[in-house]
Amino acid sequence: MGVILPSAVLVVGSLGLDSLRTPAGSVDETLGGSASYFSLAASLYTDVRLVATVGTDFPTHHRALLEKPTIDLGGLEISPDKTFRWSGMYGNDLNVAQTLDLQLNCFADFHPRLPDHYRESEYLFIANIQPSLQLEVLRQAKQARLVAVDSRDLWIEQERDAFTEVLRHAHLVLLNDAEVRQYSGEQNVIAAARHLLTLGPKAVVVKKGEHGALLFGPDDAVFAIPAYPHAQVADPTGAGDSFAGALMGYLASTNNLTESALRRAVVHGSAVASFTVEAFGVDRLQRLTMPEIRNRYAALRQLTYVEEEPD
Amino acid sequence: MGVILPSAVLVVGSLGLDSLRTPAGSVDETLGGSASYFSLAASLYTDVRLVATVGTDFPTHHRALLEKPTIDLGGLEISPDKTFRWSGMYGNDLNVAQTLDLQLNCFADFHPRLPDHYRESEYLFIANIQPSLQLEVLRQAKQARLVAVDSRDLWIEQERDAFTEVLRHAHLVLLNDAEVRQYSGEQNVIAAARHLLTLGPKAVVVKKGEHGALLFGPDDAVFAIPAYPHAQVADPTGAGDSFAGALMGYLASTNNLTESALRRAVVHGSAVASFTVEAFGVDRLQRLTMPEIRNRYAALRQLTYVEEEPD
Repeated sequence: MGVILPSAVLVVGSLGLDSLRTPAGSVDETLGGSASYFSLAASLYTDVRLVATVGTDFPTHHRALLEKPTIDLGGLEISPDKTFRWSGMYGNDLNVAQTLDLQLNCFADFHPRLPDHYRESEYLFIANIQPSLQLEVLRQAKQARLVAVDSRDLWIEQERDAFTEVLRHAHLVLLNDAEVRQYSGEQNVIAAARHLLTLGPKAVVVKKGEHGALLFGPDDAVFAIPAYPHAQVADPTGAGDSFAGALMGYLASTNNLTESALRRAVVHGSAVASFTVEAFGVDRLQRLTMPEIRNRYAALRQLTYVEEEPD
Repeated sequence: MGVILPSAVLVVGSLGLDSLRTPAGSVDETLGGSASYFSLAASLYTDVRLVATVGTDFPTHHRALLEKPTIDLGGLEISPDKTFRWSGMYGNDLNVAQTLDLQLNCFADFHPRLPDHYRESEYLFIANIQPSLQLEVLRQAKQARLVAVDSRDLWIEQERDAFTEVLRHAHLVLLNDAEVRQYSGEQNVIAAARHLLTLGPKAVVVKKGEHGALLFGPDDAVFAIPAYPHAQVADPTGAGDSFAGALMGYLASTNNLTESALRRAVVHGSAVASFTVEAFGVDRLQRLTMPEIRNRYAALRQLTYVEEEPD
């Protein structure tokens, strides 16, 4: 048996300051952005290389949360402009965030630039930035063995063709159920996900919030995992990005892309996301430990366990 | 080891004529009603005793579908009035039925009367009839070892107190996610189901349509099963009642009410419901076989199967 050499994960996404209000409380200008949640989750599994931009006003104590031996900030661009800010509110339906305020600031002119030592990265996650920027990233990361991409309603509406081009180069796509329906024009999520599989990706993960997640692979393979049954959720922000971070971190750490590894990766994603939503922002994620993740992994297995039927 | 003696299941509900329109097609005056779906599903597992009412206009060929050696129609009342009719339409969101027309007819004056030989039944399912009628049934079936009840939005709104009284006598309650939220006033389904557990029932099943089902038991026990991944659903009518029929039929046939038996029963419910929705009305259900159910049971286990994580 050979020794498994873990790979690093490269992530391109946003860093920002989030002001959040949910039925459980509120918080002002906390560390936010897809790359924050992704990096903190993935760095529990393997080394992370981050590409993002912040302004000179980005607080030192937020940066400190990302300054870990396992996170390479060599691709973090400091812009003379201000940092990206998002203010959002969740009502009783925690699946839907209402945007109260959005200031793109330095993120408006962002063009991701990969440092030379990032370019041979084998595991690449491109968060829900504009599809045209996602294509710029793809042109700089030619060695990627696993390209995973996310998107959002706005890009699917405004840059559908560019996103279709992104899909042609992606191995794995992670979207929520509304986005999968929106892109494919199919109300049935199973049919919608299978449509995406015909456009390039080898696998599709559909994130359904409180209803869990679905993994679609070749040959009609489907894996389904319910969400961890929380009686209370503090803040759903970052659930999807920390899900992706744990999933990609797990795959890169094991260097295994079999279907059974993908299933385990989705359970890791669900486990970590279930911790993320227990507190505001990255609070829970930044103090999460691997033994806690392993316990929740076991709890998620137990959640769906049923005996075989005797013949 | 002793021989397991299967018990019979008593069901009280509606029989009627359904006219259905879905994106997949339409059908006129097909056999409908909760007791039809329930009986056809449960009779695959054990003997069924049916209590319902129809008019003299109830077609012979519909009655013939229920005239099976495993279904006792001794409690079927023939009224001089017309048969209950429902006309419903589903749009692209198959979770929500829109009522186009409703004629209660003989069902308006229905008072369930249990024949003497039904009264010692140990497994009782009371479908979503008025809570005051559910209480009339409970007064006639004092020997029930397992009382399972369903309800609907209208009764929870109009006869909340009577339904609360029903819950005090129920061991198992089956509701959909909207109904659980409505009754408890809790948006979070986990918290809502746990609230119901404080009012009498030993277990709560939450039916979530395309998102599967959840089973809640004592001591915070939760079992979750995703729905079988259909890329197309012909007609969702009767999914919930055939789910309940298979669940109750399985439990009565094994005479086992342990937590692991309840989990298996929920998988049987999901398996049978997943067949029901493949065709209109009871079409698929009436030609369903136990080998088909066993195959789907295995497919549902495989759907959530994930390996243990090595330490």
